[in-house]
Amino acid sequence: MERNLLIGQSGGPTAAINASLAGVVDYALHYGKFTGVLGSINGIDGVLEENFIGMEKFRAPERIRLLKQTPSSYLGSCRHKLPDEGEVYEQIFKVFEKHKISAFIYIGGNDSMDTVEKLSRYGAENGKNVAVIGVPKTIDNDLVLTDHTPGYGSAAKYIVNSIRQLALDTCVYDMKSVIVAEIMGRNAGWLTAAASLANDNHLSPVDIICLPEVLFDTSDFLTHVEKTIEEKNSTIIAVSEGIRGRNGDYILSGLAKSTAAADGFRHAALGGVGRYIEHIISENLGIKTRSIEFSTLQRCNSETASLCDIDESFLQGAEGARLASEGETGVMVGILRKSGADYEPYITSFDISLVANREKKIPEEMISKNGFFVTDEFIKYASPLISGQPKIIYNGGRIEFEVR
Amino acid sequence: MERNLLIGQSGGPTAAINASLAGVVDYALHYGKFTGVLGSINGIDGVLEENFIGMEKFRAPERIRLLKQTPSSYLGSCRHKLPDEGEVYEQIFKVFEKHKISAFIYIGGNDSMDTVEKLSRYGAENGKNVAVIGVPKTIDNDLVLTDHTPGYGSAAKYIVNSIRQLALDTCVYDMKSVIVAEIMGRNAGWLTAAASLANDNHLSPVDIICLPEVLFDTSDFLTHVEKTIEEKNSTIIAVSEGIRGRNGDYILSGLAKSTAAADGFRHAALGGVGRYIEHIISENLGIKTRSIEFSTLQRCNSETASLCDIDESFLQGAEGARLASEGETGVMVGILRKSGADYEPYITSFDISLVANREKKIPEEMISKNGFFVTDEFIKYASPLISGQPKIIYNGGRIEFEVR
Repeated sequence: MERNLLIGQSGGPTAAINASLAGVVDYALHYGKFTGVLGSINGIDGVLEENFIGMEKFRAPERIRLLKQTPSSYLGSCRHKLPDEGEVYEQIFKVFEKHKISAFIYIGGNDSMDTVEKLSRYGAENGKNVAVIGVPKTIDNDLVLTDHTPGYGSAAKYIVNSIRQLALDTCVYDMKSVIVAEIMGRNAGWLTAAASLANDNHLSPVDIICLPEVLFDTSDFLTHVEKTIEEKNSTIIAVSEGIRGRNGDYILSGLAKSTAAADGFRHAALGGVGRYIEHIISENLGIKTRSIEFSTLQRCNSETASLCDIDESFLQGAEGARLASEGETGVMVGILRKSGADYEPYITSFDISLVANREKKIPEEMISKNGFFVTDEFIKYASPLISGQPKIIYNGGRIEFEVR
Repeated sequence: MERNLLIGQSGGPTAAINASLAGVVDYALHYGKFTGVLGSINGIDGVLEENFIGMEKFRAPERIRLLKQTPSSYLGSCRHKLPDEGEVYEQIFKVFEKHKISAFIYIGGNDSMDTVEKLSRYGAENGKNVAVIGVPKTIDNDLVLTDHTPGYGSAAKYIVNSIRQLALDTCVYDMKSVIVAEIMGRNAGWLTAAASLANDNHLSPVDIICLPEVLFDTSDFLTHVEKTIEEKNSTIIAVSEGIRGRNGDYILSGLAKSTAAADGFRHAALGGVGRYIEHIISENLGIKTRSIEFSTLQRCNSETASLCDIDESFLQGAEGARLASEGETGVMVGILRKSGADYEPYITSFDISLVANREKKIPEEMISKNGFFVTDEFIKYASPLISGQPKIIYNGGRIEFEVR
């Protein structure tokens, strides 16, 4: 009897989402009880359009190796949130039936886990024999239950080493200076908090971290900056794109509103939160300040990925394929760590209904009392996640990729 | 008789300037005819302030290794252009005499070579027995005579692989999109041109390159973008920060002028050329466009440096120390390549008076006829310079540095 596995990817790119895909495909092709392995182009959109490709070529280990170092989604992505109910479910399961799909694995973040939850529920309620499994992915690290998410460690490592190199760049002249680094993460500050890991015994450039979990008080902030820059010549301030003012509104949305009446060009030219913070420091304290937006490079940098992240992402993908092969449904693969001094992770899975549509923020005990840094508990939590450097394959200086 | 070597670094940071320093120090300590090796803190300013440190600790190979992977200037930097004549020269040579300096090596770009020229001329004219040698450094690659400059290959490699990774990030959704990448280089477009090397047989994201050597015509540009985006879904446009309009003025300075009357915040919020180009594309062609400024990371990224660049920078530093040890003066070390199909570089040196205060732009034959790309001649010239990946030493995921 034909039993095919279908895989899709969804949501924003990361450096590790293809490592998870590699794990799924590698396990499914070699150990899974499947007759075929298919990829859906552009996530659930590809399912609706029956836009599938065969994944047989990944029997070759060198292709798996390249896939692991290819950032962004090999199978493309979509931002398609399924409705609570409707024809679309019948349509999707008709496609599954037509293509003899016995299992569907969806790799993605919060919205994708919502899709997994809805599809697995529909399947169970309508007696469909299709396993639906989620494999997590998000640089935001905001999925609940699982200890951390694939993609986070690599993005964090990019932030850490970019800051370390910028720190040397900025202290080269003998003058006071501030760098404001704007970091992704609208609601949860995990990635911004990772800036703290840039500090070690030899170089300790990051003194202030502004998280979305802490309401931003301008005068309190400026006092802190002033004190810091009195003590040392130069400092780096890590700011989440999602910081909010005392009224609870995003600083960014306040800025957008205040220029909404301005003409198009000014609006286009308006920088983000980083530029705003740069402005209030230089205006109020008269210190040379420069803002840097790490931009999308922070989520798609495979060249300097964390080996820990890539390996764990691969293993979580493989576990997804194993569970799918066993006919398990309605779960998200995840990772936990044993308690103790050393980092000892293990792969597990969670009921998808307990994961979907929830958001994990940084807990209070990981944020310093004054709200402008993280505690040792965060450092201990996050440090192992950025460790190790994958061996990258280059060709004439160019990083090589596996592309469709 | 005491004979000390003094070394200084000057100008903007690069990923390779410390590799040159490592070359100078390594040669000087092991093979040079010197009694001591000193470093001047913050370039020529350190000479005037007699702010020197001993470099003995670099006898240890592991310190040399770390120094080679430390971006920015280990000895600090300055932007101090010496006057044509004046007391300062007497003052500098008095310091040299006091500290028994028999040779002074200055690692830097255009302005630093001006300093080398002036000091060596003053020395020769006043019978001073101090060798003054320049070792080049600039990501701009704009020094004359030498084939290419230390720092350029690493910055170019950073641009290439950042663009390749961004290209995968941007094409993930099924929609038309443009990325505008703003790249450093005010007058010479060598670094911007390196974006062309991001293209290979599998992935060819860069279609348009705007160089400072070619006057920017907006309507011509938009026609080109429109045609490109008709043919493919997404494209990356590389734009030099120094592009100039048809009147010969920097586009950037035009922008600054037009907002000079606006309030401080708008001025601070004003993006660079990249944002301007983003704006004219999205306004005129209605295509989703995002601009990315690579910022100072493009010049200080050691993690993904070019091995060719790091090795050549080290060798040029060593050659500087050798020449200084031989009592040679008034020269800049450089590199040339043998003609032929393969890349065969060799280290040499040039009369400093032929180098200082000149600027090498991209020659016409390396720019495509329509002005929006480079020719194969450029590709052939630049390709070897980005090759090879240095083995980087990390500690728990953090790149390690040698810091003062």
